[in-house]
Amino acid sequence: MADLKPSIIVIFGASGDLAHIKIFPALYSLWEEGFFPESFVLVGFARTKMNDEEFRKSIFASLNSHCRKRPISEDDFLNFSKHIYYLPSLYDKVESYIELGKFITSKSNEYKIDKNIVYYLSTPPSVYNDAIEGIKNGNLISEDFKGGGFSKIVIEKPFGYDYKSAKELNEHLLTVFREEDIYRIDHYLGKETVQNILAFRFSNAIFEPIWNNKYIDHVQISALESIGVGLRAGYFDKSGTIRDMMQNHMMQLLSLVAIEPPALFDADDIRNEKVKLLKSVRPLSLNDVKKYTVRGQYDRGVIDGKQVVSYKEEEGINANSITDTYAAMKLYVDNYRWAGVPFYLRAGKRLKTHKTEIAVYFKKLPYSLFSKAGIENIKQNSIIITIQPNEGISINIGAKKPGFVMDIEPVCMVFNYKSSFRLSPPDAYERLIYDVILGDQTLFARYDDMLIAWQLITSIMNGWSKMEPPVFPNYDAGSWGPKEADELISADGREWNNIA
Amino acid sequence: MADLKPSIIVIFGASGDLAHIKIFPALYSLWEEGFFPESFVLVGFARTKMNDEEFRKSIFASLNSHCRKRPISEDDFLNFSKHIYYLPSLYDKVESYIELGKFITSKSNEYKIDKNIVYYLSTPPSVYNDAIEGIKNGNLISEDFKGGGFSKIVIEKPFGYDYKSAKELNEHLLTVFREEDIYRIDHYLGKETVQNILAFRFSNAIFEPIWNNKYIDHVQISALESIGVGLRAGYFDKSGTIRDMMQNHMMQLLSLVAIEPPALFDADDIRNEKVKLLKSVRPLSLNDVKKYTVRGQYDRGVIDGKQVVSYKEEEGINANSITDTYAAMKLYVDNYRWAGVPFYLRAGKRLKTHKTEIAVYFKKLPYSLFSKAGIENIKQNSIIITIQPNEGISINIGAKKPGFVMDIEPVCMVFNYKSSFRLSPPDAYERLIYDVILGDQTLFARYDDMLIAWQLITSIMNGWSKMEPPVFPNYDAGSWGPKEADELISADGREWNNIA
Repeated sequence: MADLKPSIIVIFGASGDLAHIKIFPALYSLWEEGFFPESFVLVGFARTKMNDEEFRKSIFASLNSHCRKRPISEDDFLNFSKHIYYLPSLYDKVESYIELGKFITSKSNEYKIDKNIVYYLSTPPSVYNDAIEGIKNGNLISEDFKGGGFSKIVIEKPFGYDYKSAKELNEHLLTVFREEDIYRIDHYLGKETVQNILAFRFSNAIFEPIWNNKYIDHVQISALESIGVGLRAGYFDKSGTIRDMMQNHMMQLLSLVAIEPPALFDADDIRNEKVKLLKSVRPLSLNDVKKYTVRGQYDRGVIDGKQVVSYKEEEGINANSITDTYAAMKLYVDNYRWAGVPFYLRAGKRLKTHKTEIAVYFKKLPYSLFSKAGIENIKQNSIIITIQPNEGISINIGAKKPGFVMDIEPVCMVFNYKSSFRLSPPDAYERLIYDVILGDQTLFARYDDMLIAWQLITSIMNGWSKMEPPVFPNYDAGSWGPKEADELISADGREWNNIA
Repeated sequence: MADLKPSIIVIFGASGDLAHIKIFPALYSLWEEGFFPESFVLVGFARTKMNDEEFRKSIFASLNSHCRKRPISEDDFLNFSKHIYYLPSLYDKVESYIELGKFITSKSNEYKIDKNIVYYLSTPPSVYNDAIEGIKNGNLISEDFKGGGFSKIVIEKPFGYDYKSAKELNEHLLTVFREEDIYRIDHYLGKETVQNILAFRFSNAIFEPIWNNKYIDHVQISALESIGVGLRAGYFDKSGTIRDMMQNHMMQLLSLVAIEPPALFDADDIRNEKVKLLKSVRPLSLNDVKKYTVRGQYDRGVIDGKQVVSYKEEEGINANSITDTYAAMKLYVDNYRWAGVPFYLRAGKRLKTHKTEIAVYFKKLPYSLFSKAGIENIKQNSIIITIQPNEGISINIGAKKPGFVMDIEPVCMVFNYKSSFRLSPPDAYERLIYDVILGDQTLFARYDDMLIAWQLITSIMNGWSKMEPPVFPNYDAGSWGPKEADELISADGREWNNIA
């Protein structure tokens, strides 16, 4: 393990849900397992009024609900909490940033930290511009302090609202930070199986030869959730599934499963390949948007035996909302490897099951020896990469059914992360925060990577805005989504991998 | 399931071990599961003096020790045993065959069987020629009876002693039976996984593209036994492992894993491909025999914590025997698919473990992206087809080890016959006897198939007879075999898949 430099981590929105549910548990786990820098300071920076002790108490409670290993020892936490401080602040007041600057100077001296600062924007997107301005105007960039050190910024999604706003946000960021110091976080990329896609593809000599349009029939990428909007109604109703899932997670999964081998296994080379791949995704004309994309919104229904309300009835959602809670699309990657292979993507809420997977379907047998022997319908082979909940890979093949006659039946060969390694993998946030402090950008989106995904998604959103909105709701909670999504794929003689 | 024709099955050597341990249990299981012809007669034909009732009792005892499903219901057996008879006979006396002819005529009338007869030679090979003569001289071929029907003969191994004797035996058989009525039994071919080799290869679009010298580095075929010669000393000391295992089982496994797709999935087309494959095995010159073959004989040692004697000390074995209890060889298949890919074969007794498997090792990565990232020694991929004891297939791939750094570790994806299908596959003898009565030759060696295997093995035996015999014993019981076999493969920078 590489040594992490002593750092000050400033958490904007430190009193919020994300910080308590994900960020502090990740920080604590890293510290508890000895991966953290020997000297560090965590500073909460948020509007809520409280003192250090109250802040520490709220964190202790969160750790006991959300840490990977629980319960938390009070003695351990006491040692940890000595590094935790809280500054009640207003994001749009320069005074708050001047205070923060003084605090950083004082603590970096006290803790002998070389003014290495990580700013973590765990706030709603509406705060981002104020925060950037504040950091700039408060002179909170390390170079502005004596003694140097680094200044990095971590930004939670959504990074922008469309292509234009994402570009503007990026340009604003670049007035303060260098691109190499900007970490656009996508927690999907911290998941073991997402990282394993590249290991699987490029460390196994037997898969790469068949990973192309000669052998692959089509690819399905699904991110299905059974939950509804929950407490995120305000954010979600402005975004919809298209922004919340498609622009980031789904485009990242698409690019990882489809990229060419990079020159080196490092951040820039991998991201170069991702950009190259996304550039090869065929743009969608208005007519393509009509034919190859589907949007949906959930109606009332039953999930896990419980009656749930429709999207429009959710707390905080406008009763006339036309926000999509489901999106599906068919894309083509126009390059030598993938020409002619459709990529079907779907994501949505309040669906029958909770799973995220990449399903690679291979072409049927070029010649069916066994159909001449009277065996019809040998299923095509597939490789299913499950991202959640049970991270792993399964290969579906045909095998002779035991008995006196030759009959071929599908069987499944499984590699499951937990059972194979007997290790519980670190939470995605642990991995990503570790990489931020270390300075490894591999698992973070680069500006061009992010912008080209926005370009594609924006063209779909523009198409949708020009089209008559569908009559929503158009799918029942607890179903597999709108029938239009089934028709999208069945029109090609294929079907979604619907396994609950 | 196809209907099996009413038949009379005459078992030569009916009082012997093989009949009691394998043949009757298979016949009973077939009958008990309803796969047997509605009308049938089983006739024991052997030297031991006993009457029908004694014979039936001896069978009942065997079934209770050796049937797949035990215990045997007495009522069920009573129904089954009504079809069982015994004729004490002398194999070299024509009178015995005349008696048998009368018996067949009478029973085929009584049981309304259209004189469909299966002769099963479950005797030592020394009896084969007498039996063939007897059948001929006793006019026991169906065409010689009024009313037609079929006459088939099943011959247990060893079929001949070398190329010349096998050819002579075959020619002798052909004076009485047609080739299509001769069933040379190799119980390996009745095992589910052996049959599954073809299903695996030709019903999965993802494997055939990589099943060639472009992607495969080498193939290992191992038939390892921990048992010694047991009660078969007399037979074994004349054969050795080279005849007992290599000429039949190992050549069959080699051809199944390597053949081209047949035109049709039927007996003759599959056997055409096997002959074609074996014809492509590069013949071994005397020098090749010296360099690429190894013979061994076991010394005393420890198996499963128990001290065992050396081969020369086994009951019934000559104290100066130079018979091989172990053989290994490296072969090349000179055709477009396999040129340059070595096939390493090994078989032996009193080894550390009991397993039969085909291990297909793929080439290392053409380009190691990860070695540039500091990860050395990514294991090459392999597919292991286990024939026994746990029939199944496993694929060994690399996956990212969970944690903060990119590290690739081998993981295993397994398909196991029993757990996948939740069915205990029929015993090999059940399947093969069923096929004999049905008339399906797919799983039986054809004359040219068998002769060409003998040709290859005879050239090795001739080589050995011209070479100074090794100093035997040269490996300890309970080891992985002689060190010369390790050197055979390690000279190529490879190693045996030794997993106990």
